[in-house]
Amino acid sequence: MPRIVVDVMPKPEILDPQGKAIVGALPRLGFDAFAGVRQGKRFELTVEGEITEAVLEQARNAAETLLSNPVIEDVVNVEVVAD
Amino acid sequence: MPRIVVDVMPKPEILDPQGKAIVGALPRLGFDAFAGVRQGKRFELTVEGEITEAVLEQARNAAETLLSNPVIEDVVNVEVVAD
Repeated sequence: MPRIVVDVMPKPEILDPQGKAIVGALPRLGFDAFAGVRQGKRFELTVEGEITEAVLEQARNAAETLLSNPVIEDVVNVEVVAD
Repeated sequence: MPRIVVDVMPKPEILDPQGKAIVGALPRLGFDAFAGVRQGKRFELTVEGEITEAVLEQARNAAETLLSNPVIEDVVNVEVVAD
């Protein structure tokens, strides 16, 4: 089934406590290559039938209104993914 | 700064209550094009310096051990993203 992927990340100026916790845990587990971690969200929207431009426009609108909080988050990606 | 993106999704057979809540809310807001929603996580790992194959291997290992719970989640993507 065709899917639309929406990626949402906290805005750069917003504190990300989960990312901070992960970046603290990584070196304790031997992963020393990383300077920072930000944690965001990934949504997969399935569509029955074809993904038209109108459907993609709905996805973009939903991403900005329901899937993200525009005060603290950015929608960084809305794209169609083939299976 | 170069980044590695790690995408984690709940396994298909695992219930995703947040996705269910979103798929219920979408039509109430006028978004009627979507049959299903799954919510996962997106991590952005920043690296100081070059992203070598060794760094990418660390990211893959961290994705499987720290960033996801292999019992209920799949790592669906580990890739380098240019700014």
